[in-house]
Amino acid sequence: MIIIMKPSATREHVEALSQYIERWNVKANPIYGAGTIVIGLVGDTGAVDKDALLRDPQVENILKVQEPFKLANRSFHPENSQIELAPGVVVGGKKLVVMAGPCSVESEEQIIDVARHVQEDGATVLRGGAWKPRSSPYSFQGLKAEGLELLHKAHKLTGMPIVTEITNPAHIELFHDKCDCFQVGARNMQNFELLKELGQAGKPVLLKRGFANTMEEFLMSAEYIMAGGNENVILCERGIRTYETYTRNTLDISAVPVLKRMSHLPVIVDPSHAGGIYWMVEPLAKAAVAAGADGLMIEVHNDPAHALSDGAQSLTYESFHETMTNLRAVAQAVGREL
Amino acid sequence: MIIIMKPSATREHVEALSQYIERWNVKANPIYGAGTIVIGLVGDTGAVDKDALLRDPQVENILKVQEPFKLANRSFHPENSQIELAPGVVVGGKKLVVMAGPCSVESEEQIIDVARHVQEDGATVLRGGAWKPRSSPYSFQGLKAEGLELLHKAHKLTGMPIVTEITNPAHIELFHDKCDCFQVGARNMQNFELLKELGQAGKPVLLKRGFANTMEEFLMSAEYIMAGGNENVILCERGIRTYETYTRNTLDISAVPVLKRMSHLPVIVDPSHAGGIYWMVEPLAKAAVAAGADGLMIEVHNDPAHALSDGAQSLTYESFHETMTNLRAVAQAVGREL
Amino acid sequence: MIIIMKPSATREHVEALSQYIERWNVKANPIYGAGTIVIGLVGDTGAVDKDALLRDPQVENILKVQEPFKLANRSFHPENSQIELAPGVVVGGKKLVVMAGPCSVESEEQIIDVARHVQEDGATVLRGGAWKPRSSPYSFQGLKAEGLELLHKAHKLTGMPIVTEITNPAHIELFHDKCDCFQVGARNMQNFELLKELGQAGKPVLLKRGFANTMEEFLMSAEYIMAGGNENVILCERGIRTYETYTRNTLDISAVPVLKRMSHLPVIVDPSHAGGIYWMVEPLAKAAVAAGADGLMIEVHNDPAHALSDGAQSLTYESFHETMTNLRAVAQAVGREL
Amino acid sequence: MIIIMKPSATREHVEALSQYIERWNVKANPIYGAGTIVIGLVGDTGAVDKDALLRDPQVENILKVQEPFKLANRSFHPENSQIELAPGVVVGGKKLVVMAGPCSVESEEQIIDVARHVQEDGATVLRGGAWKPRSSPYSFQGLKAEGLELLHKAHKLTGMPIVTEITNPAHIELFHDKCDCFQVGARNMQNFELLKELGQAGKPVLLKRGFANTMEEFLMSAEYIMAGGNENVILCERGIRTYETYTRNTLDISAVPVLKRMSHLPVIVDPSHAGGIYWMVEPLAKAAVAAGADGLMIEVHNDPAHALSDGAQSLTYESFHETMTNLRAVAQAVGREL
Repeated sequence: MIIIMKPSATREHVEALSQYIERWNVKANPIYGAGTIVIGLVGDTGAVDKDALLRDPQVENILKVQEPFKLANRSFHPENSQIELAPGVVVGGKKLVVMAGPCSVESEEQIIDVARHVQEDGATVLRGGAWKPRSSPYSFQGLKAEGLELLHKAHKLTGMPIVTEITNPAHIELFHDKCDCFQVGARNMQNFELLKELGQAGKPVLLKRGFANTMEEFLMSAEYIMAGGNENVILCERGIRTYETYTRNTLDISAVPVLKRMSHLPVIVDPSHAGGIYWMVEPLAKAAVAAGADGLMIEVHNDPAHALSDGAQSLTYESFHETMTNLRAVAQAVGREL
Repeated sequence: MIIIMKPSATREHVEALSQYIERWNVKANPIYGAGTIVIGLVGDTGAVDKDALLRDPQVENILKVQEPFKLANRSFHPENSQIELAPGVVVGGKKLVVMAGPCSVESEEQIIDVARHVQEDGATVLRGGAWKPRSSPYSFQGLKAEGLELLHKAHKLTGMPIVTEITNPAHIELFHDKCDCFQVGARNMQNFELLKELGQAGKPVLLKRGFANTMEEFLMSAEYIMAGGNENVILCERGIRTYETYTRNTLDISAVPVLKRMSHLPVIVDPSHAGGIYWMVEPLAKAAVAAGADGLMIEVHNDPAHALSDGAQSLTYESFHETMTNLRAVAQAVGREL
Repeated sequence: MIIIMKPSATREHVEALSQYIERWNVKANPIYGAGTIVIGLVGDTGAVDKDALLRDPQVENILKVQEPFKLANRSFHPENSQIELAPGVVVGGKKLVVMAGPCSVESEEQIIDVARHVQEDGATVLRGGAWKPRSSPYSFQGLKAEGLELLHKAHKLTGMPIVTEITNPAHIELFHDKCDCFQVGARNMQNFELLKELGQAGKPVLLKRGFANTMEEFLMSAEYIMAGGNENVILCERGIRTYETYTRNTLDISAVPVLKRMSHLPVIVDPSHAGGIYWMVEPLAKAAVAAGADGLMIEVHNDPAHALSDGAQSLTYESFHETMTNLRAVAQAVGREL
Repeated sequence: MIIIMKPSATREHVEALSQYIERWNVKANPIYGAGTIVIGLVGDTGAVDKDALLRDPQVENILKVQEPFKLANRSFHPENSQIELAPGVVVGGKKLVVMAGPCSVESEEQIIDVARHVQEDGATVLRGGAWKPRSSPYSFQGLKAEGLELLHKAHKLTGMPIVTEITNPAHIELFHDKCDCFQVGARNMQNFELLKELGQAGKPVLLKRGFANTMEEFLMSAEYIMAGGNENVILCERGIRTYETYTRNTLDISAVPVLKRMSHLPVIVDPSHAGGIYWMVEPLAKAAVAAGADGLMIEVHNDPAHALSDGAQSLTYESFHETMTNLRAVAQAVGREL
C-alpha cells in the first residue's frame, strides 16, 4: 500500500502519520522526492483502514499494491488447484467437468431420469435445487429436505456426486451427508455468516459470483471460506447485471481468463443462468470452454415447458446431447478433454 | 398477466394452453382479434410460471399487468403506513426521523457519547453496528454480542430506540431484546431465509435496498417479511452500483418518489453509504428530504479519522449539527418537520 | 502522476524509464524507499501515455494524482463561473435559471404558446428541439431549419434566450444567429468533432452528460470546448443508464455536489429525461435544487398526450405552474432564488 | 403493438383512442375480453408514439410485438448477409475475417511493417486509425489526412482492404477513395447525422456497438444506415460498460448469438478494446469464434510499449502469430475456417 501525500504535507505530519499507521502492524516508510511525498507500507496491509486514512487532510490518495486476497491468490500458489468431488471427478484438471441437472428437484422419478440422461452424455456431477431462493415469496420454494433425499437417492443409483445450493448456515449439518459439494448462490455470495461456516464444513464449495460483484469481491468471498480452513473452492461465473435487457444477465466471459490469472482456484461457467434462455446455452458454453473454463454447470430438464422453475433456460435431453457433442470439439481445440 | 400469441397460433393451441394455465388457479380468457390473439389471465397470477410459458413456440410474449407484490402494494393500501419504533418515534408521519450513530459500536464510551450528541441535535433513533459484514475476512468484524449490549446500555441511558444490523437468522433471539428495529443490510436484501424468519420476529425491520436490485425486487423482499406476518417494514435507499467510480455508490434519488408511489411503506435514505464520503452527506440528505423521504440514516462518529470502519463517510459532531440545521429548512419547505 | 515500480525493479531500469518518460516534457524523479520504488512525475502529465507505460514489465501500477482536466478544474479557478445567456439571464449565480419548453418545436402556435406560459411562471430560457436525434430512423426527426426559425420568432416575441440542440458541426453557422446557447445532447457528449468546433463558435454551450459517461469524462468533454477558446460551458446532468428499468434513466443526484466541487462551471439538472415520466419531474427537480444545482431544464407541452416526441415526460401548464411554486420554497431553504 | 387498457376503461374511450391512433397509418382493433381490454395495432407501428399513448390515463401498458428494426431484421431476410470488402474478402461467410493493425497510424514505415506482418499470419483486412477520438483534448489525435494517405499506401503495397474510423460527416468524401470500409466508433454509434450520411456513401460500414447501448439500439443504428440505401453494415461488439473495473470494458459475448438471431448482418468482435490489455486478447478472441462470430478486429503494433495510443492492449507480432495459430483450431472445431 502506498499513501500519496499532498505536495503541501509537512515533514512532521508525514512522520506522525507514519507512526500512527504502525498500529496496524505494518512498517511505514516515508519517502521524500522532489514535489512528491509518499509513504510506502510494508507488511500485511490487509487490516489497514484505507477509509480512515483518507480523512487525513494531507493525504492525496492511497494505492493498493497488493491484492487483498491471500489464500486465493495465484502469486502465493502458482499451481492450479484441483478439487476432487468424487473418485475420478476432479475440477481443475485437463478434463472439463460438466455439472448438469434440473433447476429444482421436483420428484424422484424426475431427478433420476435426468441424472441417467445427463450421465450418459458425459456429465459427471448432478446438480439440482432443493432449497430454491426465489425473488417472490409466492413462487415454488423447492422440496427442501425431501429434495435433498431425492438427490441422495440419485447419487446412490448413479454414483454421480451431488452439488446443491445451501442458503442458511443452520442447514449445513443436514446437507453434509447428502451432497458432495455445497453451492453458494449468487445472492448469497456476500452472506458472510454462511461463508464463514462453510469454511469449517469440510466439503468443497462451489461459489457463484454475485450478479453485481466485482472479481475482487468474488475472490474475497472465496477468501472467507478459505480463511476458515476449507481451501476447496470452485469459482462459478454466471452472468452479471448490466443495462442490457435482452439477456437475463450478461455473461462476463473475461472473468474466465482474469480469475484464472488472479487465482489458482478452478473456474467454471453457468451458461444457463447467464443467458436465461435455452438457445443461448450452447454458444455461451462453447465460448466458456474456448476461453479456458474448467467446467460448466448446465440446466437440463425432462420437460422444460412444465418445469416448476427456470423452464425457459433448461435444455431438453436432445439439445443437451447435441451441445455436449459440439463442446467436445471445442475442448479438444484448446487442449482439453470432455 | 396477458399472453400475446404469435399471429400463426391455432385456435386449438390457444384453447389447450388456456386450459393448461388454469393449473395455477387463474382464469384464462382467450380473446381473438383481427391479426392479434391474446390470453388475458384473471386472478392471482403471482404463481404463474412465466418462464415455462415462454417455452411455448406459439407464445410471442408475456406482459405482467399486476405488480407481483401485494401486501406492500399501495393499490391495496392507499394510506401511508406509519411504523412506531418507540413511543413518539414514528416513521412515515409528518415528522422526519433521523437515525444517527457510528458505523460500528467500538466501546461503551464511544456509543454513549455519540448517542448523546446526535440526540441533542434532533436524531431520535440510534444506529450502530455490532455485527459488521465486511468484504474482507481480515477487516474488523464488529464487537458482536458485546456491541449489542453496549447499544442496549445507550438505549437505557438516552431512551433512543436502537436499529442495528442482523446477518444471521440464528441471531434473532439474541437481538430481540436488545434492539427496537432489525436492520437488513444491502448484501442480505435477498437472503430470503433471514427475511422469512424476520417475518415472524415481531419487531419492525429496516430493509436496505441491495446495491444491484431493482425497485420491484426490493418490494418483493419487503413482501417476504410481510407475508410472514410482520407488516412493519421500513424501506431504505442507500445507493446502487453503477459504472461511475467517483462515488462509492450512486444514490438513486428517484427511488424515493417511485417507492412511495408503488408502496405504502415508509422510505428513508442513507446518504452516508450512497456517497461514501463525508462532504456529500449534507447535499444528498437535503435532496432526499426534498424528494419526499420519510427519514434519514446518517453515520456520525466521535473521531472519524480513527474509526474502525467507514471513517471516510462519517460526520463529525460539528458537521452533523450543521447538517441538521440546514435540513430543517428544507423539511419545512416541503411541508415536513424535523 | 506516480509510477509504482515492482519491488524487483533494478535501479538501471528505473533510471532508463525516467529518462524515457521525459519525452512527454515532464520531469521524472525516481525515489527509492525500503521495499518501495516510485517515480514521481512533475509537470503537465496530461500527454503521458499511461497505457504504454503499463506495458513495462517492471511497472506495478500508475496513479494519477492530478485530474486530467485543467480549464474546467476548480483548483485553478476557485470562483464559480457565471454564464450570461441574455441580459439578466445568468447561469451560476444566486438566482436559479429554469429552461423550459417542449421537447420538439411542432408549430409556430405551439412554441409561442408554450413560451408565453412558461415565462409567466418564471422560466427565463426557452428550450425546444429543432433537430431531434431519435433512436429510430422512422420516428419524427424534428422540423429542422423551420424549427429554428420558429424558436427565433418566439425569442423575438418574448425576449427569452433560446437553447436548442445541435447534432452536426456543419450546422453551427445556421444555428449561430437563431439561438443563444448551443445544446449538446447526451448521445453527442463524446462527439469530439462537434465539441472542437463549438470551442470556436463564440456562444455558450449547454453540455449534457452522456448516459454512460463518468463525471471525469464529462469534464474532459467540457475541456474540449474550453480548450478551443470557449469557456462558457454549462454542465447538465440528465440521468445515467443503470440496470433499473422502472425509470427511463437514473438521475445521478450526487453529480451536482461532485461536479461543483471538481469544477467551477455551473451545473443544471434535467429531471424530465432522468425520470422519463411527468410525475417524477417535481420531486426530482426539488432534489436537484436542494442538492445545489444552478438551474433546471424542464419539458413543458401545451398538449402532452399529443406531443410528437417525449409526451410521457412533459408537464402540462398546470403542473409546471405548481412545480415552480413548490420549487421556490426549496430554493429559498437553500439560500437561492427562483 | 398491443395496448393494454385499464380494466376501468370505457368502451367509448377505447373507441376514441382507436380512432386517434389511426393518424399513424395503422389499423387499431379493440378487443374486449372478460376483465381485459386490449387494442391490437396492425400495420407498420414504427412511427406510433408510445410515449404519448402512455399519457392516456386509461392505458395500462403498451407492448411492442414487432421489433422496431425492419431492414436489419432476420425475420424479413432469413439468409446471412455477406459483405465483400475486396475481391475474395467476404465478411459473413464460412471463412472468418481478421482485421488487424495498429490503433493509430503513426508513420509510413510503421503501418507498412504492421500490414506485412499481420497479412503473413492470415489477417485479410488492415485496420488503423487516422482520426482518433480521445477522451482528452491533450492526447494524440491521429495523423488525420496524412494517416489516411499512409493507409492507402499500405493498401496499394499489400492489397489489403482498409477499414478506418470516421468521426465527422464532412470527411466522407475525403475518406471515400482511401478506404474500403468506414468504421463508426462506439462513441458515434448514435451520431445519427453521421449514420444518415453513411447510408448514402456507397461503401460498407463497420458499426461498433456503443459501450452503453442495448442490442436493440445497436440494430436501430444499423437501420439508420440501411434506411439510407446502404445495406452493407457489419456489426462489431467491443465490450460494454459495467460496474466491473478490472477490465476496461466487459465483452458481451452473448451479443454474438443474439445479434445473429435478431439480424442477418455479419457480427464481428473486437477483443482488444473489450479487455483493454494484451493478455486477454487471445482468450476473448477464442470465445468469440466459439460463440459464432464472423470475424475479429485485433490491435497489433510493431512496438506496443512505445505506441502513441492504446499500447496496453496491442499484441506484438509474436503474440499475434501465436493467437492466429490457436484460433485456427477453434474455428475448425465450430465448422469455420480462418
